[in-house]
Amino acid sequence: MSRKPTLAVVGATGAVGSVMLDVISRRADVWGEIRLIASPRSAGRKLRVRGEEVTVQAISEEVFEGVDVAHFDLPDEVSAHWVPIAAAKGVIVVDKSGYFRMDPDVPLVVAEANPEAVRNRPKGIIANANCTTLALIPSLAALNRSFGLVSMSVASYQAASGAGQAGFDSLYDQLGAVAGKRDLGTVSGDVREAIGEGGDDTFGAPLALNVVPKVGGWRPDGWTSEELKVRNESRKILDLPDLKVASTCVRVPVATGHSQAVHATFSSPVSADAARKVLAEAPGVTVVDDPDNNVYPMPIDATGRDDTLVGRIRTSIDFDNSLEFFVVGDNLLKGAALNSAQTAELLLPELS
Amino acid sequence: MSRKPTLAVVGATGAVGSVMLDVISRRADVWGEIRLIASPRSAGRKLRVRGEEVTVQAISEEVFEGVDVAHFDLPDEVSAHWVPIAAAKGVIVVDKSGYFRMDPDVPLVVAEANPEAVRNRPKGIIANANCTTLALIPSLAALNRSFGLVSMSVASYQAASGAGQAGFDSLYDQLGAVAGKRDLGTVSGDVREAIGEGGDDTFGAPLALNVVPKVGGWRPDGWTSEELKVRNESRKILDLPDLKVASTCVRVPVATGHSQAVHATFSSPVSADAARKVLAEAPGVTVVDDPDNNVYPMPIDATGRDDTLVGRIRTSIDFDNSLEFFVVGDNLLKGAALNSAQTAELLLPELS
Repeated sequence: MSRKPTLAVVGATGAVGSVMLDVISRRADVWGEIRLIASPRSAGRKLRVRGEEVTVQAISEEVFEGVDVAHFDLPDEVSAHWVPIAAAKGVIVVDKSGYFRMDPDVPLVVAEANPEAVRNRPKGIIANANCTTLALIPSLAALNRSFGLVSMSVASYQAASGAGQAGFDSLYDQLGAVAGKRDLGTVSGDVREAIGEGGDDTFGAPLALNVVPKVGGWRPDGWTSEELKVRNESRKILDLPDLKVASTCVRVPVATGHSQAVHATFSSPVSADAARKVLAEAPGVTVVDDPDNNVYPMPIDATGRDDTLVGRIRTSIDFDNSLEFFVVGDNLLKGAALNSAQTAELLLPELS
Repeated sequence: MSRKPTLAVVGATGAVGSVMLDVISRRADVWGEIRLIASPRSAGRKLRVRGEEVTVQAISEEVFEGVDVAHFDLPDEVSAHWVPIAAAKGVIVVDKSGYFRMDPDVPLVVAEANPEAVRNRPKGIIANANCTTLALIPSLAALNRSFGLVSMSVASYQAASGAGQAGFDSLYDQLGAVAGKRDLGTVSGDVREAIGEGGDDTFGAPLALNVVPKVGGWRPDGWTSEELKVRNESRKILDLPDLKVASTCVRVPVATGHSQAVHATFSSPVSADAARKVLAEAPGVTVVDDPDNNVYPMPIDATGRDDTLVGRIRTSIDFDNSLEFFVVGDNLLKGAALNSAQTAELLLPELS
């Protein structure tokens, strides 16, 4: 019997790290040792994975000794430092940060779209896409294979937990501050007052009873980093360097689940019925689309689900070869931990 | 001195009716008698307008005697019955319902877009557009005049109060049910359980910690009435019968203020800077667009404001002659009462 490969989870004590351990624990038991790694300040903590307690080790060059594959979930600048160190030791790194995604020598992999890309990794690094992009890709990849994607206009409805545990906590703090105050929301300014100082810290503005049309940092010409990620990462994953993308990213007062309204144009004729058939067979996608029974995709139904949900599928009225649809994905599962786990599993054939 | 015309407010006791009385009270004092009209069950109630108490009268044919202009804010089928009765008595009706909007003999008027249309009203009826359409029109009208609007893809973020007082109350009930429950939003189904039975009644699904991609009733081919209104009413108001529109309408847990992410294509070259200049001069529009200072349009800042807010203005990266932007309007003001008041005031020259 061949040795099962050793897996490391770097950033194991973070919000996504905890989901990562859950995901690994409930998927097929394909890994040998699982090493949990975090900052020195978290070293010594015990976390459960596959039903067993594992002690967290401090990150160091030595801790990667004997590791076959490592999941990295660290801030961009920390990944920029540690990922090359692990890769230099022969570890195949699956990195969730944004730092390496657009590097032409780093494949950006989504199992439903470009699984073969894991094999071409000159730096020993594979990148995991942004959570908003990831909610779109399973549907887009399937539709692209059948109809040839040419352009899309997407508007996002992104959850607070996309900003980590701090985002989740801030949303709940803010909901507590506004709940029961029915005079709010009728006169300008009151929501800010109710939430008080510090209300802008996490999202750039209050999020309760509001939507914030800014996710990520500012980039030139008024774009946000999140909007450019949706465009650039979709192009790379789908291998469509000329894909036209218009993206607006907006935070909404939802705990978990990133939604997106999509208007997409294809090179071939398409209809809602044809798209529904393609999407019903697509891996990683569950079609949730039954207007007669008030069935459509929503964050509260996507939370905790591995599949992305797609519905409200309509043939465009005024645009040739075009569709409208609505997708929702759990930003902590397909948007982060699950996609990373799936990518690591794509490496198993060459490791066993 | 010429007689000031008599105004009636029909549906004076409703949620929009109450905003209507506020709007009339704070605008120029151009009306003579103001008659308040509602269902027989509300007759006898006293409401304040222009600082005075006025007794609500029951709707009847006789109550329209001597009225020059009447605002109607009633459900579609009630408007369908009473509007022609009032119009037959020579009253010019400004109707907020959806019933007459697409009638070719009824102008659909937005002061910033087609004020001259009030003069051509063969049925004596003028329609007020849907609240979502109205948040878009001031910006679109100005951009269309300068650059020639050809197509647009819009995704909405609509407030609970768009579903009336019941919508507003339901959102607050739901926020009360989820606030403080930090386990919600991490596992599917819990939000439904916390909100309990009846949580789907107002919006078709729970709204707290959720977004609901269905506003209005179902129409053929998977469209909602709201999405078709955005398309059809924009075409009519802007007098662009060939305008291409893709629309997805979504309810979000916001009390007041309908937001929209817009991707728009024009017949002439356009840039964010050129658009910003045009919008800065546009009536009914305030440009709120300063990324360096984290300034962008949001519902909490649009609530209680007459102007629609526009920001996040960007030159499209991949589409010729195209822009992205984000607009927000108070759905009870420009989206309803204010637009109706402005339309009625357009009639003053011919009434004095």
